[in-house]
Amino acid sequence: MAQPVPSLELVPRALAGEIPAMARLMTRAEAGSAESRPALAQLYARAGRAHVIGVTGVPGSGKSTLVSTLALRLRADGKRVGVIAIDPSSPYSGGSIMGDRIRMNELAQDPGIFIRSMATRGSQGGMARASLEAVDVLDAAGYEVVVIETVGVGQAEVEIARAAHTVIVVSAPGLGDDIQAIKAGILEIADIHVVSKCDRSDANRTIGDLKTMLAMGMASIPRGHWVSPVVPTSALDGTGLDDLIAQIERHGAYMRESAPGRERVRRIAEFRMLKTAEDLLYQRYLATRQGRLDVVSARLAQREISPYQAAEALLDGLHLEDHP
Amino acid sequence: MAQPVPSLELVPRALAGEIPAMARLMTRAEAGSAESRPALAQLYARAGRAHVIGVTGVPGSGKSTLVSTLALRLRADGKRVGVIAIDPSSPYSGGSIMGDRIRMNELAQDPGIFIRSMATRGSQGGMARASLEAVDVLDAAGYEVVVIETVGVGQAEVEIARAAHTVIVVSAPGLGDDIQAIKAGILEIADIHVVSKCDRSDANRTIGDLKTMLAMGMASIPRGHWVSPVVPTSALDGTGLDDLIAQIERHGAYMRESAPGRERVRRIAEFRMLKTAEDLLYQRYLATRQGRLDVVSARLAQREISPYQAAEALLDGLHLEDHP
Repeated sequence: MAQPVPSLELVPRALAGEIPAMARLMTRAEAGSAESRPALAQLYARAGRAHVIGVTGVPGSGKSTLVSTLALRLRADGKRVGVIAIDPSSPYSGGSIMGDRIRMNELAQDPGIFIRSMATRGSQGGMARASLEAVDVLDAAGYEVVVIETVGVGQAEVEIARAAHTVIVVSAPGLGDDIQAIKAGILEIADIHVVSKCDRSDANRTIGDLKTMLAMGMASIPRGHWVSPVVPTSALDGTGLDDLIAQIERHGAYMRESAPGRERVRRIAEFRMLKTAEDLLYQRYLATRQGRLDVVSARLAQREISPYQAAEALLDGLHLEDHP
Repeated sequence: MAQPVPSLELVPRALAGEIPAMARLMTRAEAGSAESRPALAQLYARAGRAHVIGVTGVPGSGKSTLVSTLALRLRADGKRVGVIAIDPSSPYSGGSIMGDRIRMNELAQDPGIFIRSMATRGSQGGMARASLEAVDVLDAAGYEVVVIETVGVGQAEVEIARAAHTVIVVSAPGLGDDIQAIKAGILEIADIHVVSKCDRSDANRTIGDLKTMLAMGMASIPRGHWVSPVVPTSALDGTGLDDLIAQIERHGAYMRESAPGRERVRRIAEFRMLKTAEDLLYQRYLATRQGRLDVVSARLAQREISPYQAAEALLDGLHLEDHP
């Protein structure tokens, strides 16, 4: 068997926009391979120009349809667009649910649109780390817009969407009570609210309810001078797409030009630092688990020591290891 | 103002089953207070007798109704029952969605049933750590059964349910496609499958589909000699509750008496060690962020260093700090 191409050799090809090289680097990022780290560091250093947009919404909100529509439109405007979709994934079988990805296959014929479903397993830090490294690959390769799409349920999933410059939360009319309750928990992270399916007769109530909540100061957090707009859209007739694009551009300018925007970019970097550290912690834990940590966890299971004592042993023990 | 009661003084009261002392220790666990750690360590050492049951399911699956019914029934059988419900919670406002908790208020009149909604924010490690510490409080106080209820979407949320001895995944007929796709990702963690709402005319199809998937080896992982049963239930007429209780007891015995069961208890301890270490990492990061880590994250935001370099600085920097 041929030796795999070293990751560092893939970097110039990825920077030149070669899809296979980009895809391989993303695969190695997902695997968390130590060999890929210098390559990913080079890409990180070259990234920073793309407008990263997080799109999230509860199941049934129409967020995947919105992402497809948005990607096609930005592409038609001459932009190269990347989409990183975080799939619910199995902790065991490695299965990922492609579900609504299928709708996006039509987009996949155009090399100016790159779509990747991430199915990262293992640590939660790993899912965030690898997804944002995939964003770097696209960013460094010159994709002007990168969309991170996550399901708007689950602490880890919502956090990843928040690591974008511009966060869009998609609401829709006609969802059940259970879903609505979950939805309320993510509204406040929105820089832009989209109400999809606004062709439906009950959409006006959804829009009205949302505006009422925002006017009452619910479902929003202070974000400098930015007031999160509500944009009704319809995938049927394209309603609202122009307005959405305008709001995205307006928010991108706000992020670049305002002090709160620059501070938020620094906080996103903080988040990455923390998630990468969490993942390193997890990887080193896996590397040491056949060693003395087995003894520690067995003593913990026997309740001879406490979880904090075991955790201290884990954090301290890591320093006994050589870095990979 | 009076000094707060030291956590160590609350321990004997919690062990005696005094609800206010138990609740205060849980609140301190949620806050991650260093002062509470020795007390929580004492409770951990005294715990280990309760049967911990994880119940998870997608929104609309009827899992909260099942948990209520199950808790009332176990209570009627003379057991003391604790319920720890993990709520989707806001990262900012501190709001937690009580939603279906309201249905359980009727249970709250009986001191033999203790219900706690956890709305832990901050790190994902913190949510797992605090929830399992709340389980310890109940376990050490002599509650024979403790149910951990989580929404079956989100990597962090599903992981917590898996930290139980017996995992029940609740399915229901009549859910939408988006929800079904998410559901598929959690089926394999089930030791026991419940199909709720089996009074509905379309329930037989849901049961049949599930059994077909299981027979094909999909949606299941090797778990020693345990074959995960499918239990149809109805909250309307109590169908299936006897069977469910019998299956829970059968699985509890399997966990106690089999080698795979004992190995799983050790792996649950490993999970706790890791989540507690993650949370310690996060807490120390917060404690140091006004210091040199601000400089590190600013350099990261400027892309002068890579996320891995920043993460190494974070992990190494933690050792410069005194422990709290």
